[in-house]
Amino acid sequence: MAKIEVFPNPAPQRRYIIEHVNNEFTSVCPITGLPDFGIVTVRYIPDKMCMELKSMKYYFFEFRNKGIFYEAVTNKFLDDFVEICQPIEMEIVTEWKTRGGMNSTITAKYTKNNDVITL
Amino acid sequence: MAKIEVFPNPAPQRRYIIEHVNNEFTSVCPITGLPDFGIVTVRYIPDKMCMELKSMKYYFFEFRNKGIFYEAVTNKFLDDFVEICQPIEMEIVTEWKTRGGMNSTITAKYTKNNDVITL
Amino acid sequence: MAKIEVFPNPAPQRRYIIEHVNNEFTSVCPITGLPDFGIVTVRYIPDKMCMELKSMKYYFFEFRNKGIFYEAVTNKFLDDFVEICQPIEMEIVTEWKTRGGMNSTITAKYTKNNDVITL
Amino acid sequence: MAKIEVFPNPAPQRRYIIEHVNNEFTSVCPITGLPDFGIVTVRYIPDKMCMELKSMKYYFFEFRNKGIFYEAVTNKFLDDFVEICQPIEMEIVTEWKTRGGMNSTITAKYTKNNDVITL
Amino acid sequence: MAKIEVFPNPAPQRRYIIEHVNNEFTSVCPITGLPDFGIVTVRYIPDKMCMELKSMKYYFFEFRNKGIFYEAVTNKFLDDFVEICQPIEMEIVTEWKTRGGMNSTITAKYTKNNDVITL
Amino acid sequence: MAKIEVFPNPAPQRRYIIEHVNNEFTSVCPITGLPDFGIVTVRYIPDKMCMELKSMKYYFFEFRNKGIFYEAVTNKFLDDFVEICQPIEMEIVTEWKTRGGMNSTITAKYTKNNDVITL
Amino acid sequence: MAKIEVFPNPAPQRRYIIEHVNNEFTSVCPITGLPDFGIVTVRYIPDKMCMELKSMKYYFFEFRNKGIFYEAVTNKFLDDFVEICQPIEMEIVTEWKTRGGMNSTITAKYTKNNDVITL
Amino acid sequence: MAKIEVFPNPAPQRRYIIEHVNNEFTSVCPITGLPDFGIVTVRYIPDKMCMELKSMKYYFFEFRNKGIFYEAVTNKFLDDFVEICQPIEMEIVTEWKTRGGMNSTITAKYTKNNDVITL
Amino acid sequence: MAKIEVFPNPAPQRRYIIEHVNNEFTSVCPITGLPDFGIVTVRYIPDKMCMELKSMKYYFFEFRNKGIFYEAVTNKFLDDFVEICQPIEMEIVTEWKTRGGMNSTITAKYTKNNDVITL
Amino acid sequence: MAKIEVFPNPAPQRRYIIEHVNNEFTSVCPITGLPDFGIVTVRYIPDKMCMELKSMKYYFFEFRNKGIFYEAVTNKFLDDFVEICQPIEMEIVTEWKTRGGMNSTITAKYTKNNDVITL
Repeated sequence: MAKIEVFPNPAPQRRYIIEHVNNEFTSVCPITGLPDFGIVTVRYIPDKMCMELKSMKYYFFEFRNKGIFYEAVTNKFLDDFVEICQPIEMEIVTEWKTRGGMNSTITAKYTKNNDVITL
Repeated sequence: MAKIEVFPNPAPQRRYIIEHVNNEFTSVCPITGLPDFGIVTVRYIPDKMCMELKSMKYYFFEFRNKGIFYEAVTNKFLDDFVEICQPIEMEIVTEWKTRGGMNSTITAKYTKNNDVITL
Repeated sequence: MAKIEVFPNPAPQRRYIIEHVNNEFTSVCPITGLPDFGIVTVRYIPDKMCMELKSMKYYFFEFRNKGIFYEAVTNKFLDDFVEICQPIEMEIVTEWKTRGGMNSTITAKYTKNNDVITL
Repeated sequence: MAKIEVFPNPAPQRRYIIEHVNNEFTSVCPITGLPDFGIVTVRYIPDKMCMELKSMKYYFFEFRNKGIFYEAVTNKFLDDFVEICQPIEMEIVTEWKTRGGMNSTITAKYTKNNDVITL
Repeated sequence: MAKIEVFPNPAPQRRYIIEHVNNEFTSVCPITGLPDFGIVTVRYIPDKMCMELKSMKYYFFEFRNKGIFYEAVTNKFLDDFVEICQPIEMEIVTEWKTRGGMNSTITAKYTKNNDVITL
Repeated sequence: MAKIEVFPNPAPQRRYIIEHVNNEFTSVCPITGLPDFGIVTVRYIPDKMCMELKSMKYYFFEFRNKGIFYEAVTNKFLDDFVEICQPIEMEIVTEWKTRGGMNSTITAKYTKNNDVITL
Repeated sequence: MAKIEVFPNPAPQRRYIIEHVNNEFTSVCPITGLPDFGIVTVRYIPDKMCMELKSMKYYFFEFRNKGIFYEAVTNKFLDDFVEICQPIEMEIVTEWKTRGGMNSTITAKYTKNNDVITL
Repeated sequence: MAKIEVFPNPAPQRRYIIEHVNNEFTSVCPITGLPDFGIVTVRYIPDKMCMELKSMKYYFFEFRNKGIFYEAVTNKFLDDFVEICQPIEMEIVTEWKTRGGMNSTITAKYTKNNDVITL
Repeated sequence: MAKIEVFPNPAPQRRYIIEHVNNEFTSVCPITGLPDFGIVTVRYIPDKMCMELKSMKYYFFEFRNKGIFYEAVTNKFLDDFVEICQPIEMEIVTEWKTRGGMNSTITAKYTKNNDVITL
Repeated sequence: MAKIEVFPNPAPQRRYIIEHVNNEFTSVCPITGLPDFGIVTVRYIPDKMCMELKSMKYYFFEFRNKGIFYEAVTNKFLDDFVEICQPIEMEIVTEWKTRGGMNSTITAKYTKNNDVITL
């Protein structure tokens, strides 16, 4: 995979929120081979490191021809990004365009104390 | 009935939310024989299994010529999907198009500890 | 009055919400004899019985030439429907179209433990 | 003043909410003699009596040529209506159209236990 | 300054809310001498006195050629109005039109028990 | 850097909120050298000093040809402004225009008792 | 096919426009066998006959399980309806829900003097 | 290239309009290698042949990893589709997502008598 | 100035329309030295050459620190672009953000036969 | 009056349109002495001279405390601006904010050959 660059958090002494939204994410359905289109929101409170935006864009490009489920890609984002920048908290939301009259949204979250999500 | 495929939850170690919305559900009124049109929302926290989207679409197609009450079909979705993927929590909302000036919404929810719904 | 049919709740083991909205209710003003137009929302958690939609529509039609106050008809709905289907909870909201520059909304609710409404 | 008719609350055994909105209220500014236009919302929980809508409309008409301050008329509504129908709770909101670039809203409330309003 | 007239609160026995919005306030920037345009909202719970609307408008006109900072004028409104009508609570919000790509909003509040505002 | 002028808080005895929004902030991406465009919101409760708007505008102009990350510039604003006017509380939000299909929002906050931000 | 009833035009001496919109048309894709959903607009100037609405609804129901192309069904509607009611002018527009990111609209028109459509 | 299937125009005796909109077109910038995203509208009056939707979708998919200019791809669509189905008239509009603050729209049209486009 | 690249019109045999919109143009006021922000629309029918988008973006960047009047820059765009790509027709519209309560729009057009613009 | 600066038309060889809109014009009603608020649009085709924006703003400021009728001020703008910059064509539109429920718009136009305005 493309390596997401990090740079030192310019304000590690302070908790603050960073949000990046990719409106043009596209991957491939692992079953039909047809393209999927989604909006990916990455929201986090950085600790020592921040993710660099341009390398993040290239990271997303690598999924352009990759077959992967919605659920898997959402959790992979969370796993990869948490590993890369070791944030204090992070949330990933992926919203997928309508396919055959159906559309989907997946939400996953990481917190250091493992807070429990409910419906 | 068409079998809804499942696949292993790619992130069983984490609670996260999956939401699928079918904007084009159609069945038949058991009394008049006329078609009903509805929007079905399925929202759940998976445990070991996720429901596969394409087979889910075929599952919904089977109701196209079936006579069934709103209340029955909503609860059948909840029963079938809970049985199929054994989620931690699940919620079904069905919204039905106007008929003779009337429209309806049915909401049902499953939680492992049987939380009580109120108006 | 037309009898509202009931059918056995297909999921009596579970608390869930049913909502029917009649966008085209009409009755007659008991004072002026002019027609009133309203939107009636019926929201309930069924116990053993559900109300059938088509007979409900006929029930509503019977008010077409009946002179009755907003407040009376709203409470009559609640009384009649509670008697017919013995729900766990039920709420009726009636919204009335503008008459001489005025419009009105009436809200009534039934719960087994008689919860108190406040403004 | 025109007398607002009341009629027996058809459901005195139950707390429920009645809301009337007069979109076309007009009175006269006591200082300039120019007409004021406002929207009056009356919201209450009836006790033994309900206010009849048509006589209420005539009541409102009587202010057409009366010079009275926004604050006074709002509180007069609350005083008159509370006296007439002895409700459990009542709230009056008057919203006044722009005059010389300024517009105003007055809100008053009656509860049996005299709850305190804050900004 | 123009004197803001007051008149006896017609309902001193009751706490209720009065809100006046001036959409056409204009003063002068004390640094550049250029005009400023703003929307002023005055919201209060009267005690013994209410502020009369027309004299309030003339009060606002006097700032037309006065050089004064946003922060100062907002607090001056609060000080003047509190002194004039001795309310139970009062809040002033001033919203200023864009200047050089920047626009501003100032919010000040008076309560008898000096409640603390936070962001 | 351009010096942001301060002037004595005209109402130091009272907590109130000042909000300035710069809709036309522009700086340069430190990696590509291309321009970035953002909306900067500065919200604070002043203590002894207020920031003067015109010098603030000149302060923002100095970033026009400066290469700096979103995260760094947001925290620099907070650090600089807190140092300049020693507020009781302050919050900075920067919203950045879409680049390569991605857009970002950064939120940082200062409080005297260091309240903790969460997602 | 179900026969669409007609009734005598009540105002044959005047040209006027009748428009019926079916928001819930559904047929089957002749290639994939999957359901298609569309909105059908029928707009016409009647001559001697008008089409009866209820029988028109049953006519549309007959396509529920029929495999037919968008272009064919649109022209079939125009041919059938022109034959049935011999209008002065008629226009059919069919708008089809998104499939695989694509949606379609077909427009056909009949005039007695065969006016030519251009893009 | 994928072959776009055609089928006989079901109503060759009549001029009517067919419009297909692809909301999810994506190709690659021939200079930067980065993905482009666009909305493609195909509008035509068929002569003897119609273009089949599913094969059209596959035709569009082939551009997913192809480097091509906006102007070239727009005219290529027009040339290819005119050759494939020999329409009476055809119009192609491509609208491209914002890149570096700029967005573009290209419009090309074919008519049998070569009508001239002006701004 | 940065040179705007051109490339051969891929469809010189056909008149078609190309439109590029720069939503983030910025230059400097020649009198105050303060930044101006505008939206630039370039619309043309190409002859032998098309303008390349990326080099166009760099061309626009060169005005970032240039002092120039709205009227001059609009006509300069038209002169430069006409010279660069020798179009059949071209239109430039510049819309400028509010300054001191005033905003401006400049429109200039080139046609081979010098059509006259009127208000 | 403040003198409106002019500068040489940078493109005198070409007819093009300049439009300036002042959203914050204010003068005084000559009868009541109360402020009037309006939007002034100046649209012209320059000949040898263009009007400079900043001096134009100061020209407008001079009306801040001047008592003048809507009709008079609109025609004065046209007379003054035509005299100052000798345009080929010029149009003035003034739109005035609501007073006592009424609002007004005045339109005046100058052309070299005195074209007659019609409704």
